[in-house]
Amino acid sequence: MPEKPQAHDRPLHEQALKEADKLPEPERRSFLKKGLFTAGGAMVGGALSGLPPKVLADADASLPPNVPVWTRTLGPGVADRPYGMPAEAESDVMRRIVPWLTADRMSSVSFTPLQDLHGIITPNGLVFERHHSGRATVDPELHRLMIHGLVERPIILTMDDLLRFPSVSRIQFMECAANGGMEWRAAQLNSVQFLHGMLSCCEWTGVRLSTLLEEVGVKKDAAWVLAEGADGAGMTRSIPLDKAMDDVLVVYAQNGEALRPEQGYPVRLLVPGWEANVNIKWLRRLKIDTKPWMTREETSKYTDLMDDGSARMFTWVMEAKSVITSPSPENPLKKTGMHEISGLAWSGHGKVKRVDVSFDGGINWKTAKLMDPVLSKALTRFTLPWRWNGSPALLQSRVIDETGYVQPTITQLREVRGTNSVYHNNSIQTWEIKSDGSVFNVQLA
Amino acid sequence: MPEKPQAHDRPLHEQALKEADKLPEPERRSFLKKGLFTAGGAMVGGALSGLPPKVLADADASLPPNVPVWTRTLGPGVADRPYGMPAEAESDVMRRIVPWLTADRMSSVSFTPLQDLHGIITPNGLVFERHHSGRATVDPELHRLMIHGLVERPIILTMDDLLRFPSVSRIQFMECAANGGMEWRAAQLNSVQFLHGMLSCCEWTGVRLSTLLEEVGVKKDAAWVLAEGADGAGMTRSIPLDKAMDDVLVVYAQNGEALRPEQGYPVRLLVPGWEANVNIKWLRRLKIDTKPWMTREETSKYTDLMDDGSARMFTWVMEAKSVITSPSPENPLKKTGMHEISGLAWSGHGKVKRVDVSFDGGINWKTAKLMDPVLSKALTRFTLPWRWNGSPALLQSRVIDETGYVQPTITQLREVRGTNSVYHNNSIQTWEIKSDGSVFNVQLA
Repeated sequence: MPEKPQAHDRPLHEQALKEADKLPEPERRSFLKKGLFTAGGAMVGGALSGLPPKVLADADASLPPNVPVWTRTLGPGVADRPYGMPAEAESDVMRRIVPWLTADRMSSVSFTPLQDLHGIITPNGLVFERHHSGRATVDPELHRLMIHGLVERPIILTMDDLLRFPSVSRIQFMECAANGGMEWRAAQLNSVQFLHGMLSCCEWTGVRLSTLLEEVGVKKDAAWVLAEGADGAGMTRSIPLDKAMDDVLVVYAQNGEALRPEQGYPVRLLVPGWEANVNIKWLRRLKIDTKPWMTREETSKYTDLMDDGSARMFTWVMEAKSVITSPSPENPLKKTGMHEISGLAWSGHGKVKRVDVSFDGGINWKTAKLMDPVLSKALTRFTLPWRWNGSPALLQSRVIDETGYVQPTITQLREVRGTNSVYHNNSIQTWEIKSDGSVFNVQLA
Repeated sequence: MPEKPQAHDRPLHEQALKEADKLPEPERRSFLKKGLFTAGGAMVGGALSGLPPKVLADADASLPPNVPVWTRTLGPGVADRPYGMPAEAESDVMRRIVPWLTADRMSSVSFTPLQDLHGIITPNGLVFERHHSGRATVDPELHRLMIHGLVERPIILTMDDLLRFPSVSRIQFMECAANGGMEWRAAQLNSVQFLHGMLSCCEWTGVRLSTLLEEVGVKKDAAWVLAEGADGAGMTRSIPLDKAMDDVLVVYAQNGEALRPEQGYPVRLLVPGWEANVNIKWLRRLKIDTKPWMTREETSKYTDLMDDGSARMFTWVMEAKSVITSPSPENPLKKTGMHEISGLAWSGHGKVKRVDVSFDGGINWKTAKLMDPVLSKALTRFTLPWRWNGSPALLQSRVIDETGYVQPTITQLREVRGTNSVYHNNSIQTWEIKSDGSVFNVQLA
């Protein structure tokens, strides 16, 4: 039951309104000229007349006429939602699918709404999904992880066992190898979500795979690890032992809490910087052997068909890439004046060193600001202030990673790779800004 | 409709089972002795007989007898949940209340389940709540932020206006000043959630308050900022201008997405390292003046009553503190052998420099490992491997921050502050481990 707040709960509120009323006219007019950002800001004065009429409706006669309903009422108490949810007004911020992309939704993908996100962390509810047999529902009490093959002491671990090993947490990006894959031949989709949204970044927690492999004792001829999922697809990928011993984790948590079912609950592989498909979800088995297994997912899929009919195999690393998320098709410019260009950059080889932004389709470049912390194999947020005067523009971003690798144009990529590929399109994205502020996905010749 | 998976979907599965069957008896026995962590791990062998019978029930006769149901069925397709939720098996990981703590739930608190969390990020659904008039539901289209008082160009901003300013993101902890406040006189509660759970850490994104204050032009006598919330409580706090110009942000996002309603949607103040109450939610007004306003929340509340009847005021900074989250009352030790001690440390003054762990109530100390990244005014995860032999222990953690400040014992704190306080109890937590592995909150003399 909403109750009327007591007067002493907001002693300064009425005082503030009176003060605003007392502002002299000249002062009220001046800041419209002086302020950098006042185009959308209403003036203070005349009983806060800048407030929209809708806020003032339904006003209690005993209160000042401009107190909004949420200030005049009490809201639900704490733990009304023991597990919180986003505001109703944010209900269009969601994972979305491209209906024509796949024959069914059980072997398909949903995309992260990058256009609505800030910073570098992807909230768990919006991390993109890629399933091959739907979202498996695994009982953590009954789930087991087997490690066997060329090892001294094969083992089957419970989740409780895993939690007793030394843990590590890392903020890392994860990107599907097919992100942007529809763009190889020509610009297809007009959306940052559908072009780049098979991309997320979380804090992952788990056990180093090297710790588990030391536990079982890898034999001396061992060179490859097979990872197998417990879902209906029994997803399997081969991973070289040197990567497995380097930075691969067996993770049970994302952004602090247990893995979400669609990200492999209760346990998945995290293979930092490598295509997401290798990061086997619902991990049930690790086998050690001397050679790769040549599974379906590393032969007929997740290889890159070249113009001469040969195919690149084991192209695991996600090369450096960047994209401006605002402005973008979903975030058009609503007015001229100051704006912030904001985007994401990342590299499967390590840290982002620099991001440049072009307003003329790649002729001139300005260096953007990188937001701290800049972490290895994590998303990095870049920003650049921009005063838009209403002219058309061709907006691009270009990342350079710590190895010196420079993000290529789509033309450069096609020169090397042809147009048969599905995976590993890390080319520069061009957004065409029209004079009405709308934004379109284009590819420059 | 679940369908039977095709045989080719898991070509390696049956092969794996056959291989497991072939393991010789001696090898199966040996790793139980050699392995460090094998106490809970089942043996590989005899058709994976380590798998619990429940997994094997309801088996399709055409498949091997030990394939769990989630491997034999298809799950829901992508975007079945456009906004994802935790696994059902995690339903007891939730914010909780102490029913007797407050007269009603609209002016009350819910606690973060620190015992269930990993790493340093708190997922948005589990960030603790503290409301004074319930969870306000604010319409972001109608909400306005007014900045006035001793300024050249007073202004009223829409949310769209705020999004056009240069943005910054920061991973920062937020802690209620009353966290652990029930413990001043004696050990009261046996729970890491209720003792320490008014604590969370998110990546926050918004605009520097200094940017906004430069926009409005602060006049030369200005020294204080009043921040006022739009909820029914009209929560108000005074902040010195130098802090406002230093690292305070006006934030609209947490962990990538829009603020949650219970954290002040659509806009709140972020005052890094200071007691959470100052981080005004549903921020509607900032006023600049020469002196503090002496609001209810900085006079009769959020002050520290001393033994001599005087009260410390404006004790904003959350001093360095740490707590072991596992083992803890909610995470007892289930068996002897190797375990990981895991906990959180933080300081409102900057970075955590070191965390020590004691097993004997503070006589001897071992230095724990700090997890990267160690960020200023953010939670820092520390870990230490521990082989528990079943003996009773008195477990403590002690943080030292980059200023050299050492977390005090409760006895040291009482010597200075007496026992009348409610706020700013940052004393060392002692967990008593009993020989059966259960864990209790105790205070040493």
